[in-house]
Amino acid sequence: MDQLKPSLANSCPLTPLTFLERAAIAYGEIPSIIYNATTYTWSQTHRRCQQLASSIQSLGIGRGHVVSVVAPNTPAMYELHFAVPMTGAILNTINTRLDARMISVLLQHSESKLVFVDKQFQSNVIQAIKRFPPESQSPTLVLIADNEVSISSNPSSSTTLDFTQNYEDLVEKGDPEFKWVRPESEQDPMTLNYTSGTTSSPKGVVHSHRSIFIITINSLIDWSVPKHPVYLWTLPMFHSNGWSFSWGMAAVGGTNICLRKFDVPFVYHSIRAHSVTHMCGAPVILNMLSKSNSPTHRLKTPVHFLTGGAPPPTAVLLRVESLGFVVSHGYGFTEAAGVVVSCAWKPSWDRLNAEERARLKSRQGVRTIGVTELDVVDTESGKSVNRDGATVGEVVLRGGSMMLGYWKDPAGTSECIKSNGWLYTGDVGVIYPDGYLEIRDRLKDVIVSGGENVCSLEVERVLHGNEAVEEAAVVARPDEFWGETVCAFLSLKGGVPGLEERDVVEFCRERLPHYMVPKTVVFMDDLPKTSTGKIQKVALREIAKSLGSLPSRAR
Amino acid sequence: MDQLKPSLANSCPLTPLTFLERAAIAYGEIPSIIYNATTYTWSQTHRRCQQLASSIQSLGIGRGHVVSVVAPNTPAMYELHFAVPMTGAILNTINTRLDARMISVLLQHSESKLVFVDKQFQSNVIQAIKRFPPESQSPTLVLIADNEVSISSNPSSSTTLDFTQNYEDLVEKGDPEFKWVRPESEQDPMTLNYTSGTTSSPKGVVHSHRSIFIITINSLIDWSVPKHPVYLWTLPMFHSNGWSFSWGMAAVGGTNICLRKFDVPFVYHSIRAHSVTHMCGAPVILNMLSKSNSPTHRLKTPVHFLTGGAPPPTAVLLRVESLGFVVSHGYGFTEAAGVVVSCAWKPSWDRLNAEERARLKSRQGVRTIGVTELDVVDTESGKSVNRDGATVGEVVLRGGSMMLGYWKDPAGTSECIKSNGWLYTGDVGVIYPDGYLEIRDRLKDVIVSGGENVCSLEVERVLHGNEAVEEAAVVARPDEFWGETVCAFLSLKGGVPGLEERDVVEFCRERLPHYMVPKTVVFMDDLPKTSTGKIQKVALREIAKSLGSLPSRAR
Repeated sequence: MDQLKPSLANSCPLTPLTFLERAAIAYGEIPSIIYNATTYTWSQTHRRCQQLASSIQSLGIGRGHVVSVVAPNTPAMYELHFAVPMTGAILNTINTRLDARMISVLLQHSESKLVFVDKQFQSNVIQAIKRFPPESQSPTLVLIADNEVSISSNPSSSTTLDFTQNYEDLVEKGDPEFKWVRPESEQDPMTLNYTSGTTSSPKGVVHSHRSIFIITINSLIDWSVPKHPVYLWTLPMFHSNGWSFSWGMAAVGGTNICLRKFDVPFVYHSIRAHSVTHMCGAPVILNMLSKSNSPTHRLKTPVHFLTGGAPPPTAVLLRVESLGFVVSHGYGFTEAAGVVVSCAWKPSWDRLNAEERARLKSRQGVRTIGVTELDVVDTESGKSVNRDGATVGEVVLRGGSMMLGYWKDPAGTSECIKSNGWLYTGDVGVIYPDGYLEIRDRLKDVIVSGGENVCSLEVERVLHGNEAVEEAAVVARPDEFWGETVCAFLSLKGGVPGLEERDVVEFCRERLPHYMVPKTVVFMDDLPKTSTGKIQKVALREIAKSLGSLPSRAR
Repeated sequence: MDQLKPSLANSCPLTPLTFLERAAIAYGEIPSIIYNATTYTWSQTHRRCQQLASSIQSLGIGRGHVVSVVAPNTPAMYELHFAVPMTGAILNTINTRLDARMISVLLQHSESKLVFVDKQFQSNVIQAIKRFPPESQSPTLVLIADNEVSISSNPSSSTTLDFTQNYEDLVEKGDPEFKWVRPESEQDPMTLNYTSGTTSSPKGVVHSHRSIFIITINSLIDWSVPKHPVYLWTLPMFHSNGWSFSWGMAAVGGTNICLRKFDVPFVYHSIRAHSVTHMCGAPVILNMLSKSNSPTHRLKTPVHFLTGGAPPPTAVLLRVESLGFVVSHGYGFTEAAGVVVSCAWKPSWDRLNAEERARLKSRQGVRTIGVTELDVVDTESGKSVNRDGATVGEVVLRGGSMMLGYWKDPAGTSECIKSNGWLYTGDVGVIYPDGYLEIRDRLKDVIVSGGENVCSLEVERVLHGNEAVEEAAVVARPDEFWGETVCAFLSLKGGVPGLEERDVVEFCRERLPHYMVPKTVVFMDDLPKTSTGKIQKVALREIAKSLGSLPSRAR
């Protein structure tokens, strides 16, 4: 069987970049991008990316270099998803909600050579560069001027002189016949995404060309995306590369409706104007869309909405479904490159009542077809937990879309990808007898009280059931006797008569086992949040710690 | 960047076998297979495959062994597509139309250890085994009894004693908790398919788990197969593994409608009875379906039909489209594991007239998204030909679904997969300025007359345009002066007044350049065909050669 070794003909590197030149032929005349008054076709997008890549290369960028982008969901942001890796470089999209200090940390940590900056964020990025140590090498800055819109926020004291390059100039002067740089190995790095939510050292998730190829086709099949979808970019592309749909749209000849910022009336306007068929976003986006009472917001044709990050609340789900959205619920994270578990819907569930349907849909579900294995294990022993819907354990995965590792962080990498060949998610969940996964908490958010595991999400779900509660989060409060006890932080809805601590405790006692009931309740006007809108449990944990051990009289 | 090496978490082998256990969870209650009065769900199919694989392993089968199957499109045939590779063995499905002599050659060449035989073919296989040399080891035989149907053809003199195992017994006694054998490398061989059409040494195409994974998801996306399709098995599964849809149906929770033989009324009955949504087949299948005049055969809902092997003739295309079939045209071959080029349809083409639409659809098209590169090159120099729709060259491809090579045939492998990393298809084609590929001929069927390349398909298309012609094939006739000349073989339609040689020549002169016009016309009652219904050009070429060089008076 000597002749049956892999050859260059069949082991040529998998990469989603091949989708673009194909799109130029198969979908050449179909709109690739619509953004206000600008429309491009796939043949134009291919040509522009070729030209842009050629110009990026001529700035000295090549294999293994990091190129950063600070931009909203504009055509430039989309084009850079192809043009940067087409030079062999690594695409690093940065959360636009970060402040100059954090952007500076990331640009330095990534050793970015070139930074593309939308004009809205030029002041922020210049401030970030000013924070570089004097001896360090600053990256080259390219301004994305975006003449479609005028930006109110002025670049303050900084001048555009810091920008030595202009985006449209780079596109214009590039070579449309550029021979793009194919990866030498499909495991060559292609993207670098910093995950948010921590104030500790930056975690830069690196994915390979193979990983992005696999997550892209995985997600198209899992969501049953047909040819020529019209995709509205409500999900920021810097969030785990838009869950891979930036490349996915090229594979199926979709039309990308670009969007500078999320705005409910404009979203409904865009859906109508462009006959949008698909969109993605966190449940908070669904929540905002659900609050519309305008009769013009009832959808003429169904819009497929893929949500993840947290299960959509039942009430929200029912409201948006009645407006005409078809909601799919998936589970993913940056280390997996996108959605790797999804709540595959069973036809027999259609016959259930709305509450029951919403409960089933709130489960994360089944691994998607690009994932090789999924399990829930005891973190210490690595043994699978019982599939009884009750025994919690850590969710672990393996599959082609798992990250290569964290950028310049071997210790962090080997903590996440263990030597047994599993990626440990840090999420705690259960598997039901029917094989469906449900996430119960972040591992670090689990409260261990008197030897019992309390999943913070379960307590929070109960608290959210109280009509006076606007926001709720529970964390561990250190306790000499119990080890930890449950400490709840609440903000209340305006206009609702205030709750008191004992009301909350009473409310929970009726709905939860005793050990899960909060022993402490702290009221706040607003809970502290990260730049992406997640409640900062780290900060709450600090507050809970500062309360000290609970005095024994309170028990 | 030391930490950014691939790990077991992300480089675990790609294999379509993971689709099955997922289907048991995500689609557990959905019908997987319907065959006459038998229906299985995905949870049952998973269990049956587990049990079957466990029993196959207990017969001593493991990694690298070949297991053959001689069966029509029954549930057993489907299950073996999973169960055999789940033991680490290589699945070898054999064309049921082959005679005992050829089956014997293949079983010996593949060194098959175990052969599953449908009762319809038991006599054939026993005859095949009897042809083994006396000293050689015979494979173990398993009878697939299929109690659903009674088979008229008796097993003649042979007895069922030759069959030491029975299919349903193996399923029944197997372990449903079997730990299936995962490939050690994704490049481990998974399938072995002998290509038909040649009388020379057998060509056994070997594909890896990676290759089958890639072609499967590639084909689902290219054909936009949604969740829960109802797939009617008109295409034999032994044809390039049913173009990958055997595994594809598990990925999307489809229902496989199994079919012992192709029969037009039964196909229309099945479409109605099961609300079929998808089917595949050669143009001859479309042709047979198109001849139906029964008003009950008009489809209630569209049926997506994927065809390949040859472009569907315009008249056939128009007829089946009017019945309600939505036809897609692809190009593939066993060495590429399935459809790797397809005629991506452009919305603007909808406005063209029927003839023009059919002409565009008859082009093979654009590489599918799993293919890395496609080109048409000069076979000698390897240089790309002009993309002018006129300059012919050999079609070459590279991509993850290309075969590992031919079984025990290093010379054949390196003739097909050249050291430059391209797979040479042996097909001659052109690329149009819009980037679409059109196949013009098999390389070996091109006639070189006076230094000009004559593509046999172009001449045949003109001959088919003559209403008296039933079948037409042209091959080279050796010629002292021109090197080769065009020699046409024709069979005529019954009832049509006979053509004469000069009529044919006259007809072609009006429609073709002089050098392409047949210099010789041979009339036959039927043209010789292979077991799969292809016209045997090898035999025709022998006849043409026996005519000798054309005497100069005939010019």
